[in-house]
Amino acid sequence: MSVALVGAGPGDPELITVGGLARVCACEVLVYDRLVAEELVAEAPPQALRIARDGLSQDAVNELLVEHGRRSRVVRLKGGDPFVFGRGGEEALALAVAGVPFEVVPGVSSLSAVAASAGIPVTHRGVASAVTAFAAHDVEALDAAALARTPGTLVGFMGGAVLGRLAERLIEHGLSAATPAAVVSAGTTRRERVATAPLGSIAATARDLPSPALVVIGEVVGLRGALAAAGRAAA
Amino acid sequence: MSVALVGAGPGDPELITVGGLARVCACEVLVYDRLVAEELVAEAPPQALRIARDGLSQDAVNELLVEHGRRSRVVRLKGGDPFVFGRGGEEALALAVAGVPFEVVPGVSSLSAVAASAGIPVTHRGVASAVTAFAAHDVEALDAAALARTPGTLVGFMGGAVLGRLAERLIEHGLSAATPAAVVSAGTTRRERVATAPLGSIAATARDLPSPALVVIGEVVGLRGALAAAGRAAA
Repeated sequence: MSVALVGAGPGDPELITVGGLARVCACEVLVYDRLVAEELVAEAPPQALRIARDGLSQDAVNELLVEHGRRSRVVRLKGGDPFVFGRGGEEALALAVAGVPFEVVPGVSSLSAVAASAGIPVTHRGVASAVTAFAAHDVEALDAAALARTPGTLVGFMGGAVLGRLAERLIEHGLSAATPAAVVSAGTTRRERVATAPLGSIAATARDLPSPALVVIGEVVGLRGALAAAGRAAA
Repeated sequence: MSVALVGAGPGDPELITVGGLARVCACEVLVYDRLVAEELVAEAPPQALRIARDGLSQDAVNELLVEHGRRSRVVRLKGGDPFVFGRGGEEALALAVAGVPFEVVPGVSSLSAVAASAGIPVTHRGVASAVTAFAAHDVEALDAAALARTPGTLVGFMGGAVLGRLAERLIEHGLSAATPAAVVSAGTTRRERVATAPLGSIAATARDLPSPALVVIGEVVGLRGALAAAGRAAA
């Protein structure tokens, strides 16, 4: 049989792709992340085997996909996009090595969608013509010097309370403490919360925002006032 | 009434989001880009006014959205994601200034999906923990020194025959000519074509690939062999 690595999108269940939802609706086994919307887990057929991935190591997930993928139609439903900090490449390689056919159905990444939900375009003509996304779980391992020099918007995928140290390291390496920054928690969901402040004080301002959170750093954050206000009028 | 700025995704019509397709199916006016799949344009109601955007300046598109948005339910259907080199921010600002309610429905960006379609994960643990996307239309205006130092994968959105000059500038600024590179033309569609070569010769190798094309530069391109071969078996 086969495995489909499907991106569920950033949180809002209607941001899964048409193709991704079709795979979920036709699966025999669904292996899903904690952050995936429960409405999407509910779309799998009633008789489908549902396996929450939480508590399993990445190696155990890989083995699970290989084993079930040999005899069933498996969907591996992942938050965001499988290949943008989703470790989909590792799962795909494990399947490739085992000779289990697989396909990748990309998803809407938090990279732009979570920022958009907060009224921030990660690129904007005349403001930012590049965007760099990075995983900020291990702040000390980041090449902060290179990130501070990046010619556009910075988008950090964060786990835990690393924001203060991240801001500190970027400022140490020359990024202005006055650079506009935003933290978006649970973006695109009903629990979405946004904090904005200059980079130098964003950690203090966003202190109470729960994970998962995305940090956006750059002049595009300044566009938020106009866009978020008008955007809300349509909702 | 209102305007929905909807990302159509990278090319394959089944990569539009569920929410985006629902907006298209319920619109009264559809303003769409040339690169949007014709299957999606066909999903608008038969009586909907369809307006191809091609040949119109950005200012004219903005005006069109404001005028129709005042009295109709408008969908602005854009390739990829509206806020990743999609100029969605400009359209959103024009609507905000005019007081026309709008919403943004993000889409799957080519950034990761086109690379994925060619078997390349833009991030991969131990290989690339960051990805920088940039618009490569005006190569001379790029901060090639900063891009060459970026600590991860580079993804360039290209128009026209700029690849040779782009590679030249990155190499001048210290990126190794041996860095793996790929060009993906018409990614995720039936016309998809892929060329891979070291950065120093990618322009010659990809010479015949038509626009739109995406260039991916970095060690992740080396993962393609295993992933593309196995991925195809599932299709």
